[in-house]
Amino acid sequence: MKISHQMSSMKGSPIRKIVAMIERAKTNEKLISFAGGAPSLAPPREMMDELNKAFAANAYKATSYTSTRGMPALISDLCEDIKKTEGLHYSEDQLMITEGSTEGLFATFYGIFDKGDEVIIFDPTYVGYSEPLELLGAKVVRVKTPMSAGFQPDHEELKNAVTKKTQAILIVSPDNPTGRILSEESTHLLSDLAKDAGLWIINDRAYNDIYFEEPGPVPTAKYAYDNTISSYTFSKSASSPGIRIGYLAGPKEIISAAIKVKQYLSLCSNSWGQIAARAFLKIKEQYIRDVVIPAYRKRRDVMIDSLRTYLPDAKFMKPQGAMYVFPDFSTYIDDRDEELVQEDLLESKNVAVVPGKFFGENGAGHFRLTYVAETEEKIVEGTQRMAEYFNEFKSEHLPADALKPGDTSPFC
Amino acid sequence: MKISHQMSSMKGSPIRKIVAMIERAKTNEKLISFAGGAPSLAPPREMMDELNKAFAANAYKATSYTSTRGMPALISDLCEDIKKTEGLHYSEDQLMITEGSTEGLFATFYGIFDKGDEVIIFDPTYVGYSEPLELLGAKVVRVKTPMSAGFQPDHEELKNAVTKKTQAILIVSPDNPTGRILSEESTHLLSDLAKDAGLWIINDRAYNDIYFEEPGPVPTAKYAYDNTISSYTFSKSASSPGIRIGYLAGPKEIISAAIKVKQYLSLCSNSWGQIAARAFLKIKEQYIRDVVIPAYRKRRDVMIDSLRTYLPDAKFMKPQGAMYVFPDFSTYIDDRDEELVQEDLLESKNVAVVPGKFFGENGAGHFRLTYVAETEEKIVEGTQRMAEYFNEFKSEHLPADALKPGDTSPFC
Repeated sequence: MKISHQMSSMKGSPIRKIVAMIERAKTNEKLISFAGGAPSLAPPREMMDELNKAFAANAYKATSYTSTRGMPALISDLCEDIKKTEGLHYSEDQLMITEGSTEGLFATFYGIFDKGDEVIIFDPTYVGYSEPLELLGAKVVRVKTPMSAGFQPDHEELKNAVTKKTQAILIVSPDNPTGRILSEESTHLLSDLAKDAGLWIINDRAYNDIYFEEPGPVPTAKYAYDNTISSYTFSKSASSPGIRIGYLAGPKEIISAAIKVKQYLSLCSNSWGQIAARAFLKIKEQYIRDVVIPAYRKRRDVMIDSLRTYLPDAKFMKPQGAMYVFPDFSTYIDDRDEELVQEDLLESKNVAVVPGKFFGENGAGHFRLTYVAETEEKIVEGTQRMAEYFNEFKSEHLPADALKPGDTSPFC
Repeated sequence: MKISHQMSSMKGSPIRKIVAMIERAKTNEKLISFAGGAPSLAPPREMMDELNKAFAANAYKATSYTSTRGMPALISDLCEDIKKTEGLHYSEDQLMITEGSTEGLFATFYGIFDKGDEVIIFDPTYVGYSEPLELLGAKVVRVKTPMSAGFQPDHEELKNAVTKKTQAILIVSPDNPTGRILSEESTHLLSDLAKDAGLWIINDRAYNDIYFEEPGPVPTAKYAYDNTISSYTFSKSASSPGIRIGYLAGPKEIISAAIKVKQYLSLCSNSWGQIAARAFLKIKEQYIRDVVIPAYRKRRDVMIDSLRTYLPDAKFMKPQGAMYVFPDFSTYIDDRDEELVQEDLLESKNVAVVPGKFFGENGAGHFRLTYVAETEEKIVEGTQRMAEYFNEFKSEHLPADALKPGDTSPFC
């Protein structure tokens, strides 16, 4: 029997390699993982309390289908929340609930792209965009955002990447893997470009609430309201990726299209998660401010201090948001294949990292290090182990001309 | 900005009309709804108890991402459950968790069909199949299963519908809207046909546990194991459509393809629902036997008795499973448009039904009546109101030659 050509020709995804790698490594007790992409705090107790209340009041109703758009009360609360936190006004027919940010993006892609349409993404950026886009027949055009530019796009390059076939620019800010927040200037220029060329801005806001200095990420909807589709999720903000609840906000026509698609993707999002999400919104501000940011900021600072201390030749940008630092390890990796280095590091030192090249050409030589998943002690220990690994490798592979009389090379 | 052609050319779906109709009608207190598609019992308390236990033990773990395939413990329990209830052996890499049956079907469609491929479905059948299939570029070929044949397919017609482009036959048994269970003979013949022609059988098993006489539906996997992809859901069996948990079982290669697709549809299914689903499996047999079937059987019997009493000219097949009866109302509807009749019935008598033509050409003249959503008293009252409606209409619209001297026609 037949498997569709689109599936059988689908190339192996880096994200699957990463997940498989982490799964294998998890069973190792000595493991220090800088590789995951999950938040590391417990979800607020209030979320489960509210679900229990709803279930006790009416188990049938609490466990029913919701409409495809989502629970009206949650949609209404989200309109309020966006107004309060971002000063942006969305009516209830401009919002819908999704399965995390993933489904919001897929439904948006389906709603915008036909075969041959072009979409601009940054390089490096999240590995999960290009495959579904290509699966839908869209052509991914990459604009480089190297560390030397603070991972910000060059405006001329961005402009030059737009062709007659371009339908959208896809951004994520704070960014995975770089921790970069798109500058106010970049946001402004990008918004103008979208308005001038009649393009959609698909704004993945998965890490929207995770930033370390005010004012945080600026929504493109501030400058290009009619062009922007924002994809949010509770996964990171509420430390609850397991509830699979996100939401899309944007112009009515794109939300209507995305709702049509969602009917066939999932019919509706789960009611328990939607009930819990409502409870979260009531305590969101305080939870983010008092629990999430202090914990993640402290771990970020320990991570960068450790890098400076134990791996002084790693160049990095101090992360402005999200949960990752993306240092350039070229000096340490030298001309070795970074995937081999990663495997070697995992095997010999029980430290898991993600090779930067998975995130695009401009990620080559970098590693993505998640700093939220381990305690401060483990972060220090993990960086030390990495340093040990590189030092041992260096001393075992000293170039021949570095050998002085009397030195004993392992190759002698 | 652009909306994709596939979305803008998407025709209005009957399912959306139905849902919108029910939504509008819901606010009406006098409403008796035979229109919905949801189960009507409360989910077992054990499901929420188990979730609370898991959350208390480790809130972080209970609310984490699961792997895209699903929680290993749930997958393992499902392999056991299928072995026990159906005598079929599936290994853990032949199963995956989905967002109800909806995502399982979509991921399967994506995994099988390329543009121009053909898929055979029955007529009448569930309205939710043809649109996603057509959206993916597959051509839907309908084989009629009229009431006169007990809604069973004619084997010659089925065989003749297979062309070189046919990749799959899609069935649902027990069926929505007819309540028909595919006979052992039909199942056997269909399985042989699939094996001979090298076709997939996509077996939607949404109503798998809801049947009224032993032995119930026969899985096609019994006769065509390697050809069958079965899409199950907890929505109806556990009276919990809100948890959005279903599962796919089939050959490894199609499950692998569906997992690849799911990565971009939803990443993984919600962890809370998966935990609850495990708890349900422990009590499933008893809950279905002692709670679901007795309640639904009683309502089915009241519905068909009421039809016989108050609407004696409606011809119907006694439902063998699922939650619907699909009577032919042609005698009552006469040559009126059945959508207009439905709207008129809702407006004048507050009774909601679904026009049969939405389910295919062979559904014309029928109405789908859900008998699980109302109490026995309401079922009787609803059928009485329908009878009143048809009688009043008839007396108001007596043909001219039926007027005897002295009669007063409203048109005179």
